[in-house]
Amino acid sequence: MKIQIINGPSLNLIGKRQTDLYGVTSFDEFLEKLKTKYSDIQIDYFQSNVEGEIINKIHEVGFSYDGIVINAGGYTHTSVSIADAISAVEVPVAEVHITNILGRDEYRHVSFIANACLGSIMGFGLDSYRLGIEAILEIAS
Amino acid sequence: MKIQIINGPSLNLIGKRQTDLYGVTSFDEFLEKLKTKYSDIQIDYFQSNVEGEIINKIHEVGFSYDGIVINAGGYTHTSVSIADAISAVEVPVAEVHITNILGRDEYRHVSFIANACLGSIMGFGLDSYRLGIEAILEIAS
Amino acid sequence: MKIQIINGPSLNLIGKRQTDLYGVTSFDEFLEKLKTKYSDIQIDYFQSNVEGEIINKIHEVGFSYDGIVINAGGYTHTSVSIADAISAVEVPVAEVHITNILGRDEYRHVSFIANACLGSIMGFGLDSYRLGIEAILEIAS
Amino acid sequence: MKIQIINGPSLNLIGKRQTDLYGVTSFDEFLEKLKTKYSDIQIDYFQSNVEGEIINKIHEVGFSYDGIVINAGGYTHTSVSIADAISAVEVPVAEVHITNILGRDEYRHVSFIANACLGSIMGFGLDSYRLGIEAILEIAS
Amino acid sequence: MKIQIINGPSLNLIGKRQTDLYGVTSFDEFLEKLKTKYSDIQIDYFQSNVEGEIINKIHEVGFSYDGIVINAGGYTHTSVSIADAISAVEVPVAEVHITNILGRDEYRHVSFIANACLGSIMGFGLDSYRLGIEAILEIAS
Amino acid sequence: MKIQIINGPSLNLIGKRQTDLYGVTSFDEFLEKLKTKYSDIQIDYFQSNVEGEIINKIHEVGFSYDGIVINAGGYTHTSVSIADAISAVEVPVAEVHITNILGRDEYRHVSFIANACLGSIMGFGLDSYRLGIEAILEIAS
Amino acid sequence: MKIQIINGPSLNLIGKRQTDLYGVTSFDEFLEKLKTKYSDIQIDYFQSNVEGEIINKIHEVGFSYDGIVINAGGYTHTSVSIADAISAVEVPVAEVHITNILGRDEYRHVSFIANACLGSIMGFGLDSYRLGIEAILEIAS
Amino acid sequence: MKIQIINGPSLNLIGKRQTDLYGVTSFDEFLEKLKTKYSDIQIDYFQSNVEGEIINKIHEVGFSYDGIVINAGGYTHTSVSIADAISAVEVPVAEVHITNILGRDEYRHVSFIANACLGSIMGFGLDSYRLGIEAILEIAS
Amino acid sequence: MKIQIINGPSLNLIGKRQTDLYGVTSFDEFLEKLKTKYSDIQIDYFQSNVEGEIINKIHEVGFSYDGIVINAGGYTHTSVSIADAISAVEVPVAEVHITNILGRDEYRHVSFIANACLGSIMGFGLDSYRLGIEAILEIAS
Amino acid sequence: MKIQIINGPSLNLIGKRQTDLYGVTSFDEFLEKLKTKYSDIQIDYFQSNVEGEIINKIHEVGFSYDGIVINAGGYTHTSVSIADAISAVEVPVAEVHITNILGRDEYRHVSFIANACLGSIMGFGLDSYRLGIEAILEIAS
Amino acid sequence: MKIQIINGPSLNLIGKRQTDLYGVTSFDEFLEKLKTKYSDIQIDYFQSNVEGEIINKIHEVGFSYDGIVINAGGYTHTSVSIADAISAVEVPVAEVHITNILGRDEYRHVSFIANACLGSIMGFGLDSYRLGIEAILEIAS
Amino acid sequence: MKIQIINGPSLNLIGKRQTDLYGVTSFDEFLEKLKTKYSDIQIDYFQSNVEGEIINKIHEVGFSYDGIVINAGGYTHTSVSIADAISAVEVPVAEVHITNILGRDEYRHVSFIANACLGSIMGFGLDSYRLGIEAILEIAS
Repeated sequence: MKIQIINGPSLNLIGKRQTDLYGVTSFDEFLEKLKTKYSDIQIDYFQSNVEGEIINKIHEVGFSYDGIVINAGGYTHTSVSIADAISAVEVPVAEVHITNILGRDEYRHVSFIANACLGSIMGFGLDSYRLGIEAILEIAS
Repeated sequence: MKIQIINGPSLNLIGKRQTDLYGVTSFDEFLEKLKTKYSDIQIDYFQSNVEGEIINKIHEVGFSYDGIVINAGGYTHTSVSIADAISAVEVPVAEVHITNILGRDEYRHVSFIANACLGSIMGFGLDSYRLGIEAILEIAS
Repeated sequence: MKIQIINGPSLNLIGKRQTDLYGVTSFDEFLEKLKTKYSDIQIDYFQSNVEGEIINKIHEVGFSYDGIVINAGGYTHTSVSIADAISAVEVPVAEVHITNILGRDEYRHVSFIANACLGSIMGFGLDSYRLGIEAILEIAS
Repeated sequence: MKIQIINGPSLNLIGKRQTDLYGVTSFDEFLEKLKTKYSDIQIDYFQSNVEGEIINKIHEVGFSYDGIVINAGGYTHTSVSIADAISAVEVPVAEVHITNILGRDEYRHVSFIANACLGSIMGFGLDSYRLGIEAILEIAS
Repeated sequence: MKIQIINGPSLNLIGKRQTDLYGVTSFDEFLEKLKTKYSDIQIDYFQSNVEGEIINKIHEVGFSYDGIVINAGGYTHTSVSIADAISAVEVPVAEVHITNILGRDEYRHVSFIANACLGSIMGFGLDSYRLGIEAILEIAS
Repeated sequence: MKIQIINGPSLNLIGKRQTDLYGVTSFDEFLEKLKTKYSDIQIDYFQSNVEGEIINKIHEVGFSYDGIVINAGGYTHTSVSIADAISAVEVPVAEVHITNILGRDEYRHVSFIANACLGSIMGFGLDSYRLGIEAILEIAS
Repeated sequence: MKIQIINGPSLNLIGKRQTDLYGVTSFDEFLEKLKTKYSDIQIDYFQSNVEGEIINKIHEVGFSYDGIVINAGGYTHTSVSIADAISAVEVPVAEVHITNILGRDEYRHVSFIANACLGSIMGFGLDSYRLGIEAILEIAS
Repeated sequence: MKIQIINGPSLNLIGKRQTDLYGVTSFDEFLEKLKTKYSDIQIDYFQSNVEGEIINKIHEVGFSYDGIVINAGGYTHTSVSIADAISAVEVPVAEVHITNILGRDEYRHVSFIANACLGSIMGFGLDSYRLGIEAILEIAS
Repeated sequence: MKIQIINGPSLNLIGKRQTDLYGVTSFDEFLEKLKTKYSDIQIDYFQSNVEGEIINKIHEVGFSYDGIVINAGGYTHTSVSIADAISAVEVPVAEVHITNILGRDEYRHVSFIANACLGSIMGFGLDSYRLGIEAILEIAS
Repeated sequence: MKIQIINGPSLNLIGKRQTDLYGVTSFDEFLEKLKTKYSDIQIDYFQSNVEGEIINKIHEVGFSYDGIVINAGGYTHTSVSIADAISAVEVPVAEVHITNILGRDEYRHVSFIANACLGSIMGFGLDSYRLGIEAILEIAS
Repeated sequence: MKIQIINGPSLNLIGKRQTDLYGVTSFDEFLEKLKTKYSDIQIDYFQSNVEGEIINKIHEVGFSYDGIVINAGGYTHTSVSIADAISAVEVPVAEVHITNILGRDEYRHVSFIANACLGSIMGFGLDSYRLGIEAILEIAS
Repeated sequence: MKIQIINGPSLNLIGKRQTDLYGVTSFDEFLEKLKTKYSDIQIDYFQSNVEGEIINKIHEVGFSYDGIVINAGGYTHTSVSIADAISAVEVPVAEVHITNILGRDEYRHVSFIANACLGSIMGFGLDSYRLGIEAILEIAS
């Protein structure tokens, strides 16, 4: 079983960036714990600040993996193209967000990507990623 | 440990109503499985079609339980008052939806309640409720 | 043959309230005439100011009656939940209004409920209810 | 007693056009049945694809007939001028629609004409015309 | 010197229609007085309820007359095509309205035609037409 | 002289809920002081989280009391039906709010109820209720 | 007979300012011609860049003059207060504009003042003022 | 104790202007009664039609008086600058309106000033000013 | 093989009207060249300024021709009825425009007709018509 | 003669992705046929999922090729930057779309790119590309 | 070389007013430093709370000075008339703001004045004025 | 002292592209002059058409340089992700634009990036970059 986690722009700075919003744990530390917890499945990780490279990755894994857990960061609110890429592939995709995007700036209330995903999980901090994996596992079971 | 599940209007018809959208499992059947899976915690269930009774229940459990998992149904998109009730209490609240509300009618894209909740989970069918409980457990741990 | 008439908030004051808009006939008087005219069918009447109780009634009769004639009053313009309840049941529903809601305040131009109903009739005074029954009878025939 | 039915653009193709929306009965067949049912009143019929000719007809009958039943078709959503013509005459006018225009494209939700009419009836198929005649008869009685 | 007056839909009913808004003088009576006052110029009059016939008339006189005074009635608020016809010809065009359209329904606040005209005059009753002729005369002088 | 105070959803938690917004005085304490101050008039108090019960109360007292002071809480921003109930009765109604609703979330800027009331008072903390009573007394005098 | 012309901000620069839009004739020169033409009536002129002084002038002449011809310049599009002042006095007021404001920037399409005036004249260059006087004379006659 | 009443544009015409809206009592008469009633405090009065002079007055009294009761008239709906002046000073400010601005034209529903004030009182006729003083007194006590 | 070209209002003035936008070639000249180029198919031409006559023509050829190439001119942006007529017939329809309507006034950005057509071609001058015929030929082949 | 075809995100999956919308022919197969048909001109092909690489390509060919045929995919609806790149170069650009974007989701109705292009062609399936080449050829001839 | 600095409403309170937003330095102190730094040019200063007086000053210096640096304060967001005054004069005008107006309330995001100015500088505290002078100097050099 | 200049899409074509808007000086020429003028500080330059690479550069210098001067070109109006990257780093950022974006197309009036920057400078041609450096120097001093 293979699940791809995709992180969008500036999520490489988690733990260092705006820690009041995103917490002090770096994504690498969190990822280690996640892999330990779900040691029986393969969890791959990809981060890019480039919209098109995120699309490339979705194309690459979208016909062979069991699921994608994606936090598209700022592209969430602007990218029709990532949404199109998700619609174009076959794998179930769970959208996750660290913060509750509905409680922030108005332009963050719209998610172009949500509509193309199976479902969305937001607001539970880094635990949102774990819940995304849980959701994929349930579907795959 | 005590978690309250609250279901809003017409969710008593799950399994019977629009089965293409909501599936054929009744909520009672699903609840049984959920209680079996999480047998070490107390899961209480409440359903009402009356907005004010949902508020009453939030007030009742909102200072003593460990968490609320709420699917406010149609009130999600119209009720400032349920959102206010959630803000008024102390317990962490996870909003859940069976369908991906962002993929349905435009007036369903707005959730007044989301903003007052800790986070939201939508689109994973009845499994959204389980993920809501998982989220509460993580916070409480 | 059984038809349920449902009246929403403040429609119990018809004949007493804003008589320039709603006329001087009370709903009870009108109902008597209606029952006399359609003496071969069972016409049940329910009025409530509580949104959730209207939903309860729709659930109650929605799988066994031949039709519902509903004037949801002020809830017409705000209630996603009543619309959901109508979509959730099987019975044909005719929406009626005493006044022409399109000729009043802007916020009354939107009917959330109309979309879930078979059709709508508005502006013909209390006669709108009779036309609603006529519409149900034609469908049932 | 004289009632004028006015049909707007493309309603001459009823029974032939988009039969999933409008049914397979042609308007001529339906009209025959209607005349048979209401044999004691004079029912005149007029159809035109030209907005101005519809206005001409409203002017022509608007001071002498007992009522007009109008389905302005696509002009419903765009014609201030037909609405003005209705306001300019004295006869009571009932707006009818075969489909529930509130359940179709957004630009069909607005009826410029409704505001100028006595009332509106929509969504009951061709039976909407019969209900329109019923409404006129009640007023005239 | 030749000036064409063009009246749009239902303006043939002036003096008969909604007399509180439009007054009790018929347009024919008013036209006689206007012709008497401006006896040294040729004033032609055309009224139609058909949008396209108004366009035909604009095309017909638009390259040879000295000016057009137009009250497009309800088409004022909806007709891009009449505006296009005015832009397509060479004659100066003055838009006139009997009532102050900015003091009526919101959808009457927009004039598609104004933008294509030299100028607009509204709210002075039938005298608006005389002012339109005055404006054309000044330009032509 | 009889004045009815009506409090909407979650206002029973005043003094306990979001004390930075609503202060630490409970409504019961405040009510005692108010009754002491206005000991020569009868002040009745009603609180409900149910929209329809608030309507019931308005109907009940709306033809016999001297005035209503209402804080509809979250229903202020969503309830056409409470506004309709106020319009349907004869008693003068003063709308009050503890906070200045125009200085909070955008969706709180709209009051459906204000339009149906005699007037509105907002932003003076619990003293808004006293001012509401003062306003009613002036009218009744 | 006394008519007051009121010019708003920067209209003192006419003839000097943006001559492609407003022409090369100064307002003083134009005013001389106007007074010569209408030598039997008293034409007073007032210009101010201060919104409140324009209101003062309206108050001053608004109960004793026969008419006001006003070009409120930029305040046309923003001043509720000038509109209120016009509504508060008894004299008929004609709004004029040199340019066709409907053919310029979008924010110039709205005239708060128009609604309070008897009527509006725009787009005929400085001749708009003469037409305004003509309109007042007709009313006063 | 010193309270400043500030009245905006055209409020000097109260009692003379649109008496159906504003009543027949002049502000001077009302002010006399107010001063009599609150004879133990100093009530200063200022009226201006000039937005900037209202700002000057707010600056002048805003650091030394005990409160301001302001009815900014038409500037209520357009003046960011008066709102800024209120925010810039230290004195508590109560906004008052004679009419219920929420029941009038749509552009009167927005109050830029309300947000900067402590609170707002509207719709109680001239009594709104007295309630404003009552509110200030309570705060100062 | 038979293709109908339909031109809407003022397109009869092409070559004479606004030549900077539409060029100096008259449509008749262009049509001759087109017929010469596609000499093996029958190309019929119809122009009308009347919305309803355009609908009549669509009805007439819409069940027997191989395709329609339509430039509805100003009706493009306002006519629900022409769109309905296109939806009501069976023939493939290609919408064409001489100019790029997306680079002109905002109200020209909306095409009601596009949605009902197979596809749209705009901005290539008169060559847009040829491309429309090419598109129809490809579909018919 | 050299024409560059540029395809935006996920258009590499044509023939494999959402075949009900985009058909079963892969773009490579289609390109082969196109090159065969237009064997006397050089047709270059470029596809990228990265917005900036599409801009790079436009810069690269934009001063030396005879034309560009671009389908920017999802970037059509969001990219000001691609539109700017098209405006910045000298080559004529034809925008093409496989589907009729006006008949899909609302956010697909806006094309930022169209405005900067010579013209647009949409809705004719892969044939839209051929029509784009035809348009370029006509301009270049 | 002569540069005019113009400050709008409540900017006379800088250093005293909302010091968290605007800092503790008074404008007079800052102005002294500025004049010292640019001792070889004449820097004139004007502050007014009256919109029309700001226009007067723009007219006064707008044909003879080398540049204007303006912070219109609250009028920035509402004054078409100040923008018109800037457009009416010949001098280059630089708009400055102490705070980043795009990071504050939504109604502060619009600057009517910006469009009429050469350019805008915002968010650098009082240093924005110095940058404005730098910009004028560069243009004048 | 180190300052990074970042240029977004198509700004590499400055001096060659739309010279009426952007002037004839290439950015390289301008940069040379800038470096000469500020020879005591290190000015680094980076240009990319790829949104993500701009983010990469912001991350790279955002914790070690003294300031960033950024012109994000077309991404200014669409990129939440660049704004997020600016918020995520510690360095002060000045946004600059060559043209006054508020005087161009409506969709250019919004800057997502401005809100995350210290301040913005626009409309002074290439001199905007120098002013940006001046602003950074003042902050750093």
